[in-house]
Amino acid sequence: MAKYVYLFKDGDASMRNLLGGKGANLCEMTKLGMPVPQGFTVSTEACSKYYEDGRRINEEIESQIHNALAETEKIVGKKFGDNKNPFLVSVRSGARASMPGMMDTILNLGLNDVAVEGLAKLTNNPRFAYDSYRRFIQMFSDVVMEVEKSNFEAILEHKKEEKGVELDTDLDADDLKAVVAGYLAKYKKIKGEEFPQDPTVQLIESVKAVFRSWDNPRANTYRRLNNIPYEWGTAVNIQAMVFGNMGEDSGTGVAFTRDPSTGERKLYGEYLFNAQGEDVVAGIRTPKPISDLEKDNKALYDQFVDIANRLEEHYKDMQDMEFTIEKGKLYMLQTRNGKRTAQAALKIAIDLVKEGKLTEKQALLKVEPKQLDQLLHPQFDAESLKNAKVIATGLNASPGAATGVAVFTAERAAELAKTGKPVILVRQETSPEDIEGMVVAKGVLTARGGMTSHAAVVARGMGTCCVAGAGTVKVNEEGKFFTVEGKRYNEGDFISLDGSTGKIYGEKVKTVDATVSGDFATLMAWADKYRSLKVRTNADNPRDAKVAYGFGAEGIGLCRTEHMFFEADRIPAMREMIVSKTLEERQHALNKLLPMQRQDFIGLYEEMHGYPVTIRYLDPPLHEFLPTEKDDIEALAKEMGITFDELNSTVNSLHETNPMLGHRGVRLSITYPEIAVMQTRAVIEAAIEVNRRGGKVVPEIMIPLVGEIKELKMIKDIVVETADKIIKDNKVELTYHVGTMIEIPRAALLADEIATEAEFFSFGTNDLTQMTFGFSRDDAGKFLADYYAKKIFANDPFAHVDTKGVGKLMKMAVELGQKVRPDIKLGICGEHGGDPESVEFCHAIGLSYVSCSPFRVPIARLAAAHANIKNPR
Amino acid sequence: MAKYVYLFKDGDASMRNLLGGKGANLCEMTKLGMPVPQGFTVSTEACSKYYEDGRRINEEIESQIHNALAETEKIVGKKFGDNKNPFLVSVRSGARASMPGMMDTILNLGLNDVAVEGLAKLTNNPRFAYDSYRRFIQMFSDVVMEVEKSNFEAILEHKKEEKGVELDTDLDADDLKAVVAGYLAKYKKIKGEEFPQDPTVQLIESVKAVFRSWDNPRANTYRRLNNIPYEWGTAVNIQAMVFGNMGEDSGTGVAFTRDPSTGERKLYGEYLFNAQGEDVVAGIRTPKPISDLEKDNKALYDQFVDIANRLEEHYKDMQDMEFTIEKGKLYMLQTRNGKRTAQAALKIAIDLVKEGKLTEKQALLKVEPKQLDQLLHPQFDAESLKNAKVIATGLNASPGAATGVAVFTAERAAELAKTGKPVILVRQETSPEDIEGMVVAKGVLTARGGMTSHAAVVARGMGTCCVAGAGTVKVNEEGKFFTVEGKRYNEGDFISLDGSTGKIYGEKVKTVDATVSGDFATLMAWADKYRSLKVRTNADNPRDAKVAYGFGAEGIGLCRTEHMFFEADRIPAMREMIVSKTLEERQHALNKLLPMQRQDFIGLYEEMHGYPVTIRYLDPPLHEFLPTEKDDIEALAKEMGITFDELNSTVNSLHETNPMLGHRGVRLSITYPEIAVMQTRAVIEAAIEVNRRGGKVVPEIMIPLVGEIKELKMIKDIVVETADKIIKDNKVELTYHVGTMIEIPRAALLADEIATEAEFFSFGTNDLTQMTFGFSRDDAGKFLADYYAKKIFANDPFAHVDTKGVGKLMKMAVELGQKVRPDIKLGICGEHGGDPESVEFCHAIGLSYVSCSPFRVPIARLAAAHANIKNPR
Repeated sequence: MAKYVYLFKDGDASMRNLLGGKGANLCEMTKLGMPVPQGFTVSTEACSKYYEDGRRINEEIESQIHNALAETEKIVGKKFGDNKNPFLVSVRSGARASMPGMMDTILNLGLNDVAVEGLAKLTNNPRFAYDSYRRFIQMFSDVVMEVEKSNFEAILEHKKEEKGVELDTDLDADDLKAVVAGYLAKYKKIKGEEFPQDPTVQLIESVKAVFRSWDNPRANTYRRLNNIPYEWGTAVNIQAMVFGNMGEDSGTGVAFTRDPSTGERKLYGEYLFNAQGEDVVAGIRTPKPISDLEKDNKALYDQFVDIANRLEEHYKDMQDMEFTIEKGKLYMLQTRNGKRTAQAALKIAIDLVKEGKLTEKQALLKVEPKQLDQLLHPQFDAESLKNAKVIATGLNASPGAATGVAVFTAERAAELAKTGKPVILVRQETSPEDIEGMVVAKGVLTARGGMTSHAAVVARGMGTCCVAGAGTVKVNEEGKFFTVEGKRYNEGDFISLDGSTGKIYGEKVKTVDATVSGDFATLMAWADKYRSLKVRTNADNPRDAKVAYGFGAEGIGLCRTEHMFFEADRIPAMREMIVSKTLEERQHALNKLLPMQRQDFIGLYEEMHGYPVTIRYLDPPLHEFLPTEKDDIEALAKEMGITFDELNSTVNSLHETNPMLGHRGVRLSITYPEIAVMQTRAVIEAAIEVNRRGGKVVPEIMIPLVGEIKELKMIKDIVVETADKIIKDNKVELTYHVGTMIEIPRAALLADEIATEAEFFSFGTNDLTQMTFGFSRDDAGKFLADYYAKKIFANDPFAHVDTKGVGKLMKMAVELGQKVRPDIKLGICGEHGGDPESVEFCHAIGLSYVSCSPFRVPIARLAAAHANIKNPR
Repeated sequence: MAKYVYLFKDGDASMRNLLGGKGANLCEMTKLGMPVPQGFTVSTEACSKYYEDGRRINEEIESQIHNALAETEKIVGKKFGDNKNPFLVSVRSGARASMPGMMDTILNLGLNDVAVEGLAKLTNNPRFAYDSYRRFIQMFSDVVMEVEKSNFEAILEHKKEEKGVELDTDLDADDLKAVVAGYLAKYKKIKGEEFPQDPTVQLIESVKAVFRSWDNPRANTYRRLNNIPYEWGTAVNIQAMVFGNMGEDSGTGVAFTRDPSTGERKLYGEYLFNAQGEDVVAGIRTPKPISDLEKDNKALYDQFVDIANRLEEHYKDMQDMEFTIEKGKLYMLQTRNGKRTAQAALKIAIDLVKEGKLTEKQALLKVEPKQLDQLLHPQFDAESLKNAKVIATGLNASPGAATGVAVFTAERAAELAKTGKPVILVRQETSPEDIEGMVVAKGVLTARGGMTSHAAVVARGMGTCCVAGAGTVKVNEEGKFFTVEGKRYNEGDFISLDGSTGKIYGEKVKTVDATVSGDFATLMAWADKYRSLKVRTNADNPRDAKVAYGFGAEGIGLCRTEHMFFEADRIPAMREMIVSKTLEERQHALNKLLPMQRQDFIGLYEEMHGYPVTIRYLDPPLHEFLPTEKDDIEALAKEMGITFDELNSTVNSLHETNPMLGHRGVRLSITYPEIAVMQTRAVIEAAIEVNRRGGKVVPEIMIPLVGEIKELKMIKDIVVETADKIIKDNKVELTYHVGTMIEIPRAALLADEIATEAEFFSFGTNDLTQMTFGFSRDDAGKFLADYYAKKIFANDPFAHVDTKGVGKLMKMAVELGQKVRPDIKLGICGEHGGDPESVEFCHAIGLSYVSCSPFRVPIARLAAAHANIKNPR
């Protein structure tokens, strides 16, 4: 028979998957002989069974719960519903990963009309007993039986009015007894039955309620954001109640073995005498610092310090502990690895190594790669944030905090920024023409677009804070204002963005600058020591390249050449190229673009100091470069000396029904090989130039959107012919490589053919995800919310590589490619390259490098180290 | 050493791939002891080598040619450049598949200043000799040396003027001698060198020219249209010249062993005395019927008849033969299986079985499935077509011929059709709202859209002629006219379309109706006997279903339920459903749609007489149902009793950047499960109704666009719950199946998961092709022309399944699916289901059925038989 229920004395910390974090640690502390109120854990498997059985607890599990309860009663020497020494328990959720506050808790379970009297006698405190019973009835009714709290609160309020008092504490035992009677009557009225007096019924119903709460909307959202699988389920911990509110010799508190803000090694926390946990949380009384306990009760403090030290030593990590003192006796209610700031995480990890408690590898695993973001971007000042009001929430598209005045056009952003004003660029959605505004803005806010929208991608590249797709923000660009739920924010009004959480504030919030400490360098050095994946960056200009190099990028994995053409001094030539009717005209325009592009590449090569630079040839549909509004077309036509009709007809002819599936990528070069020739000239001539000055450039030319070997072959032949001629004419030696992106499913399926021509593959997982799923990132936003709500997708496949589907294609491509070309270089340059989980997958399938936006380079370095430590190559 | 050159006496008919069709048959006739002017064949492998070596003939091949030439000179007893008995040859292309007129030919090669004298003496006809030399110089210069013919024609014209004569034949030997001198001088002037006098140089250059001509644009287009791989290359046949123009005892002719128009068994052909092949072709003199030869020269006629009979007996097929009589001696220049009309093809195949020459299986293989189209659709009257002028060409989107007056709206089409006028509906592109116009039109012409555009798909379904994507046709729908190269065609002007070739005529051309003979039924019966693939049809309404059933469809493989909602009496309810803001509103609209949909299904079931009917649930993006023009939105808003702004904002909110990758297919049901509920009710209630009347309906419910098992599971659960309840409530038994389309790459990759829920797979190869290649059929048109021109694609992957890429996914899905569910039903319902090559592929990978538009059902039946005969299951 399967075992679904474990006494605390029968488990240990290794059973986290089965017992949840809280349960496993309660077992472990029991094993270590620490003072833990005893109890038992209903396993996560029981939770799965509950859902499998159609949301019911089967007889087997129920009977195991009864048995465990009986055992526990023996251990603690109390009995459920006893009128002298009643056994009371807490019922708490406890998943494999901590999900604080997301699921339900029931305290004081076991109280009924009899037990309350027992409690009153035992504690000699009837007021306490009836207050506990009152609270239990309310909590149980609300959480387990779905009777709204407000039904009960009214009774309590009424009683206070009747007595003419303000505070709950002003009610005496009799008052509370009357309140309890009122509660029970109300319950019966609403539910049509008596409040359950049988503690075992209370218990089984409560276990169900906790299981049920695993599936509540709050928990589902939290899991999606934290990438916790729905399948895990939660365990339920049933633990003997201890009371911190039994008088001045009782109390309760929370403590950390180190400071969770700074990482400093000292006991950190607070406690309250004569209080229960909820009083600490409620903030009515101000708790005392934990150090005061030494003065208040030296023996107890020493005992606690000893336990804290032993726990940290045991878990080899900073612990976050909850404790209760009941009539002078210390009880440990929980211990877990403590949450900490990024700065603290670094310091603790490094200190633990210095203290000889952890190896470097172990220490690396203690720091979440994603956390590093905090160190690299400005954050809100905690004090200033306290009173700020969130007016809306969007996607946390690019981390960091920003405050500034709202502006609605790139031009205005540039004007105001010049005067020294901090600006936030607010747009419906951004387009490449907004680049100049984005460069000067402190933050970018868009009403539309997802995590891989233009705004998000570009902002991340620049390290600028961005909140994207804030649907409740209605932007009126022409009118220069936006509204949120009817409230209007005009140009010049201060707003603030938190790009790490997606929160938007309608006011000024102070920010503090990023601080990169020496610890950061130490940790990164360790990461580099233990990783096998190289980390490159996606950078389109020397500015980004320089930042990325500073963050440790080992080359450029993706330079999107088209981004270079959006700048004001270049776009005219680009547009001229696009509207050219003949090869000669087009050639003429390309000749204007050549020197600019060459100069860009020189800049990139120089910033990369000899690291490889991968240059992707022109990729987007050409119409992206052309204006769409009538006025803009008119203006451009005038500027270009052609008629409106002529330009308009070109713009129309470039219209596509599904631009994502249209004339772009290598398809452009197939139609206009002269573009590939120009870009090759720029790549090669720039490399020759930089190498003449002592550089060691080995350019990598990347052909995008290849789906058929003949496409690649044709363009590669043009590239090689052009390049070799220039090299020969210059009488120099220059190595260069030609490869392709694998972003079309067909390319992955036929990667063995593709590899006969491609010297490297770079997985373009943005497009590959779109094509493999058959939905575009621009359009999926509309229905993905439904997909999460209905648990069809656990998370966004554009944020984390879909290892099952897209990953299968990637593995296939890796294997097919290596079969034909064993030394083929394999990388990834989609947005997934900076996502720690995706980095782990890339490591597992044997890629050579990942490439990500500059500010994600440190994250990728640490993630790569994690991957290799967990699964060494 | 590889053998690249074969004497006619050394080959046979089995060597077609190596020697080409012409060469292999010349060898075979030689082997059979027939009078063939001797010679040799340079193989197709030599052609491949020529291209591999950068368009040159290597020394090895050249030396093999020289050797073969020397051998041939011995055999025929003549010598190159001899002044008494000069050896002259023809140099002709000959690919594996016949490509008539696409490549180059050189006649009379070997003539030079010496040999011409030898020829004059030998024939005792200096005029003939110099005329031959003149022609050779012109042909060689033009074809081989790229000197324009016009250079020479001017000299000849000048000579005729000088002599004051009209015809070439009025020039005498001396005149022609002077012309030859003029030609040679002209050649030298243009090329800067003497005309090559060395016959071996002439020969090698000519072989090169033929190889080169394999790659000319004409040949490339022909290959693409006929699906002949570029890689095959052409062979070159060098054959001793014989002259049909050596006097009245000479002649030349062409004959078929049966009538290629009707298939009647009688020698059919024509000949001319004292003439060369080109005279027959040129049509200056009228040839005599072959039967006249019996009177003219009984012995020769008997010899020819004997040869013809032996050839047909030998090849077991109708032969198309070329012959020349030189001074009373018969020479066979070519034999091949003759091209024939569809009607003839059927008759010949069936007669050959009756005559005991072929088995039924062999006979089936003699009929091209595609040819059957001719029998099922009206064709142009051959006489009337002779003088008709093609004004433009589009895609041959739906076969048949049509003539009628141009109209530019569906409404006008309906009006005029009611008066009995034949109409051609001309549109920029059609949309579902044009259906009523398409139903009444004789033909449909669109300026945009590809082979799988709305117009093409719907027209094929209805069997209506359609020419799509005719880019040079500029349609002005509002102005009610179109222009082609400036010429204007107004509403009411007659135009004609050939949907089998894509040709458009600016005038009335008489059509003749389709004729389906008893032979058709015989052949189809044989096809059914030998095929293992079932053939179903794609039909959305009882009308199409009935046609398809008549053509032998064994069920409906795809019913696109959305097509039912475009009709005028339904679209209001559909639109109401779409703009609903609440579930209640939507439910209300769905309740209106339910009875209509149920009635449609009853009709379909009845027309299918118990065969399976597969119903695909709502698939297209919802905005397709909404109007886009301001006026239309205004009208609709009024009709629906909502404000313009409200409706307009709904329309806008439904806008998608890439609708093909947007909110459609199963994604709609995930968001609005009530749609799936309504459709299930309609499917099941209709089945119960029909079965009550004695039907045997087993509906198959098909969920489209699934990419993830949980999508399918969720909707299947809803379907099953709804269906089972209805069945139970009705107290009946009803079997139904729930399956899915495999049209998203991810579904194919994870087909083992999908098969746990799907009872059947139907490959939606339109979408699967789009996603696998990453281009949409709507947008690819723009660049596919470049892809053909540059030989990146041999043909349209939307017309023939891309077996390498898309096919790999299909095979993977078949294997994964069968692993989990060995009896899974596998079909295809993309447009490829009616393409013979694709049918062959579907057979090979083990599908259970193909489904295609009604008029392609017979084609698919025959193609399925071909597939199983060639590759039995």
